[in-house]
Amino acid sequence: MTRTEETYILVAGGAGFIGSHLCRALLDSGHSVICVDNLLTSRRENLRDLEPHPRFTFIEADIVEPLPEQLRAPDLKISRIYNMACAASPPLYQADPEHTMLTNVMGSDRLLRLAEEKGARFLLSSTSEVYGDPEQHPQREEYRGWVSCTGPRACYDEGKRAAEAMTFDFARLGRADVRVARIFNTYGPNMDPNDGRVVSNLLCQALTGQEITIYGDGSQTRSFCYVSDMVDGLMALMEAEVDGLTPINLGNPEEYSVAELAEQVIALVGTRAKVVHKPLPIDDPRRRRPDINLARQHLGWVPKVPLAEGLAHTCAWFSTEVSANEGLCPIAAE
Amino acid sequence: MTRTEETYILVAGGAGFIGSHLCRALLDSGHSVICVDNLLTSRRENLRDLEPHPRFTFIEADIVEPLPEQLRAPDLKISRIYNMACAASPPLYQADPEHTMLTNVMGSDRLLRLAEEKGARFLLSSTSEVYGDPEQHPQREEYRGWVSCTGPRACYDEGKRAAEAMTFDFARLGRADVRVARIFNTYGPNMDPNDGRVVSNLLCQALTGQEITIYGDGSQTRSFCYVSDMVDGLMALMEAEVDGLTPINLGNPEEYSVAELAEQVIALVGTRAKVVHKPLPIDDPRRRRPDINLARQHLGWVPKVPLAEGLAHTCAWFSTEVSANEGLCPIAAE
Repeated sequence: MTRTEETYILVAGGAGFIGSHLCRALLDSGHSVICVDNLLTSRRENLRDLEPHPRFTFIEADIVEPLPEQLRAPDLKISRIYNMACAASPPLYQADPEHTMLTNVMGSDRLLRLAEEKGARFLLSSTSEVYGDPEQHPQREEYRGWVSCTGPRACYDEGKRAAEAMTFDFARLGRADVRVARIFNTYGPNMDPNDGRVVSNLLCQALTGQEITIYGDGSQTRSFCYVSDMVDGLMALMEAEVDGLTPINLGNPEEYSVAELAEQVIALVGTRAKVVHKPLPIDDPRRRRPDINLARQHLGWVPKVPLAEGLAHTCAWFSTEVSANEGLCPIAAE
Repeated sequence: MTRTEETYILVAGGAGFIGSHLCRALLDSGHSVICVDNLLTSRRENLRDLEPHPRFTFIEADIVEPLPEQLRAPDLKISRIYNMACAASPPLYQADPEHTMLTNVMGSDRLLRLAEEKGARFLLSSTSEVYGDPEQHPQREEYRGWVSCTGPRACYDEGKRAAEAMTFDFARLGRADVRVARIFNTYGPNMDPNDGRVVSNLLCQALTGQEITIYGDGSQTRSFCYVSDMVDGLMALMEAEVDGLTPINLGNPEEYSVAELAEQVIALVGTRAKVVHKPLPIDDPRRRRPDINLARQHLGWVPKVPLAEGLAHTCAWFSTEVSANEGLCPIAAE
């Protein structure tokens, strides 16, 4: 339960993969945290360790709808709002594209209005997807991207771009103090095993003895940031005294091909499953790597966890989850 | 008043510049028209000739809010929905960027849901601004654009891109039959004299003996489509049996520099006012010219009205408006 004498940090999407780690880190730093989540694509299990905490409050709500009255109560003090809400993997965000778009646009608008009411600082978790299939490497924040606004990924990519636009407008008009993080590929415990991302796909397949799927020839590259590094970056950005009028890339600039990642996973798990190649999805980016000079300069932040170490932690977590839950990594439908 | 035995065409933003001409053309073609407009940036005077028409119904409403109950009445038949709503000139759409974004995203969503309910075909009036400051000339529909999602024009540009994304998602899911028109610069009677567009600015200044303002050196180009051509294109697109999964450019591919346009206006009005240059606004596109091959091929449409003829009509209208209303073209603030 919330108490009026306290000041809260609100995490929308706090039951999601990154959101749940953020809630944990904020609690560990001594903050009181309110998590709002619709539990549509996030995992209730991610709240298991958080819910018993005396400074943690969970509210099940969808930010597309008017915010719960208790958040708007005049005596509830909120100093920070992290908007981590939105399905982030293509199969999940494409399942209901209208809801994906509205989560980004209406959801951000409602949270920005709450930030304005409360005098809270607002952080939008944006995405490297705003760069689309980039023609520049690595991607710097001023690069405008190569995004299709007509394709099946547009509900997410354009939704985030629209959310950024709205966030910066609140800042320009002095309505809210804002921060925008462009989050690149992140992995770690609490990832949804079924959300179709490359790390979770590969680990799931390797751990359950399935064939290892690589889309395309595997030469497309990604940079993989371990979740603890990402959470450090988000908290540093929220607290940094920056002008708030520029987005900041957060991600690990070490670039690996999907084929290299698959090799590491196979070696780590020790599976003998064979690798199969499938066609690349529409608008799948060929390369993605952040330029993190702005984060380094303004936040003093760089990722610390090497891929081998992060993969080992993640593999251990997946392994426990797979043992505990037979249906966790179903064999992918053709 | 609407009658249940009739089938209606809904025009959201029907009191606006292009919207009002569209309503007139639809009435002239024998249709019954419902116009929804919030009259925020459109001109009530644009409805003057429409309101007495027996097949015309005006509803004052904002599509950001839930649609008026009378539109949702189960016995009201709507076969076509044109979404022409949204302030379209930078000073007006930047005055309330949150509302601009929501008009595009929430407004389009509400109208798309109405189209789904009614089994109506939906046409989104998108814009050449989805190409941003383009690096390709002329712009073809598959060009993904060069748009800033962080700047002061983003509320409009990204709002329209998001509206396109949502529209195509409704089509992909079979929820509505859709058309998306990307409208390039259009001019003609009923333009808002104060909306800061180049044609209206120049005509207003010339007709009231003010200095003629050119932003930058005037070498930036625009293509100007006369409004009757645009309305023909919109109606042709709405009725065309195309797959609806690609946007279609509508505009006049004849390219003029802003300096050339100023010369034509000066010659037409016969003013001796001097030309002054002011700095270019942020993110102002340097060139803009449609590739209209898709429209030509699928709609058999090409613009017919030459610039000199269109400017003469427009100048005559501005001249009457200026005589009738002393305050119509106020001297621009510095």
